[in-house]
Amino acid sequence: MRLVTYTCDEAPARLGAQVGDQVVDLAALAAHHDTALPQDLLSFVRADAGVHDTARRLLAGGPSDWPADAVHAVERVVLHAPLRPGKIIGVGLNYVEHVEESSRSLDTDKGLPPRPVLFSKPATAVTGPGQPILHNADLTRQLDWECELAVVIGRTAFRVSEEDAYDHVFGYSIVNDISARDQRRSGQWFFSKGQDSYAPFGPAVVTADEIADPMALDLELRVNGVTKQKSNTRHMLFPIARLIADISSGVTLEPGDVIATGSPSGVGAGMVPPEFLVPGDTVEATVEHIGTLANPVIDAR
Amino acid sequence: MRLVTYTCDEAPARLGAQVGDQVVDLAALAAHHDTALPQDLLSFVRADAGVHDTARRLLAGGPSDWPADAVHAVERVVLHAPLRPGKIIGVGLNYVEHVEESSRSLDTDKGLPPRPVLFSKPATAVTGPGQPILHNADLTRQLDWECELAVVIGRTAFRVSEEDAYDHVFGYSIVNDISARDQRRSGQWFFSKGQDSYAPFGPAVVTADEIADPMALDLELRVNGVTKQKSNTRHMLFPIARLIADISSGVTLEPGDVIATGSPSGVGAGMVPPEFLVPGDTVEATVEHIGTLANPVIDAR
Repeated sequence: MRLVTYTCDEAPARLGAQVGDQVVDLAALAAHHDTALPQDLLSFVRADAGVHDTARRLLAGGPSDWPADAVHAVERVVLHAPLRPGKIIGVGLNYVEHVEESSRSLDTDKGLPPRPVLFSKPATAVTGPGQPILHNADLTRQLDWECELAVVIGRTAFRVSEEDAYDHVFGYSIVNDISARDQRRSGQWFFSKGQDSYAPFGPAVVTADEIADPMALDLELRVNGVTKQKSNTRHMLFPIARLIADISSGVTLEPGDVIATGSPSGVGAGMVPPEFLVPGDTVEATVEHIGTLANPVIDAR
Repeated sequence: MRLVTYTCDEAPARLGAQVGDQVVDLAALAAHHDTALPQDLLSFVRADAGVHDTARRLLAGGPSDWPADAVHAVERVVLHAPLRPGKIIGVGLNYVEHVEESSRSLDTDKGLPPRPVLFSKPATAVTGPGQPILHNADLTRQLDWECELAVVIGRTAFRVSEEDAYDHVFGYSIVNDISARDQRRSGQWFFSKGQDSYAPFGPAVVTADEIADPMALDLELRVNGVTKQKSNTRHMLFPIARLIADISSGVTLEPGDVIATGSPSGVGAGMVPPEFLVPGDTVEATVEHIGTLANPVIDAR
């Protein structure tokens, strides 16, 4: 399923499944069949597999079986960030060529990191597809992009082995890991990467059963239509199963938590000369089978 | 008010106000007076000032006015972490003498940081008074302590001036900022400081009206009864109002968020030779007017 959080007219945000160019409201679909499904994605993620199976079964009936009041044309709705994560854990320097460009431009180590380099963004940093990335020139002149595959946790994970790691994955999405490079504080990345709107997230969460191999997805980022990053998740230094095992060795991952798995080379700080985002730019982050997350940059002084 | 989250017998956790050696259940007290108060601290923090005034007024009646079923002897209840924060923002290197000891022992800069050094701990790191700090010798041989005044946010803050900063504070508590010094990852502190149980929090949140000057509080930390840290919040490099203004210049602070305001000198890594926590130790962090947060260290391999 391609799950989205959407609004239509003035109604509160609800959980939908996107099928082609239609969004099917899952709670409304279930009500039509005298059953119940959650109205929001976080509750759906936390629900057990039986609930997920019910949703799949009801959707499988196809358009002829969906009640009219549960179906919206996708161009008639507004998509939002899929959910508010309890935590977003980012992984720095997780693509080999990005390690090299970072050591040139961002004072990071030249060598490959021996363990995943972890940081976090707060939930307040999340913004949805189409929503603005806030450029505050009083705080930064070095606003940068990073296209990343996002792993959405489905089941609580603590001390999970690499072998069992994928049992704890609900699905996949996209995070654009925005940084104000000039707001690193004594080397710490939190304020550089954690500001409001610095975690565009979406446009959908695609359930794990629909992604045959999350370690073989093309990803690409464009600024104003010009390709800046282009790679494939197979080039991750620490693959997804290793990240989940490593993080959960000490930090409990909870349903709805997000791991932003790192970015390939092609960030603005690594360009010669460096390029950074300015108001008026549009950034598009694409991950194969998931879609494109597009955000305008606005002046937010 | 000295607000606590407590359990009694097998009942779910509830919000209480500690008065002397008694804990008064606020929702039960309110029900006795045909009104209502929240059953949990986060809801109480989010409520408006009228709700807080109601609680103060009902408590002011004194023990003779409190119904027996709303009152528990403090030694009959178990205290828990006061609330689950949306985010915990930590401040590194915020006491001058700690900057010096860190540069000797932890590879940080010698100079005073020009801006607050910010990092974060996830909500999953929180543990309550008396609860164990998890020592996993497979991950760390350098488990360290840091006694810190915790500021609990009461009203949403975005781009708040230093002058207005205290309007956004609900109250004060204690965080023991536990670190596995050997789990810094390419300099990033998240995994070092963000593991489960690495944020002991409590034992109470004291409302702001009861702390005359949060910038003049003695703080002290003992390991097995031996004093390791002893200072006063007046020695903070960036005072509370500056921290709130700085953080909220880019990151929205929400009710229930916690700022751990940094630790004075006397951490284990700075001792000659270094000292670290091992299973069997007990750590007590004391902040004047708030109390003592005591936690045992256990082997959690």
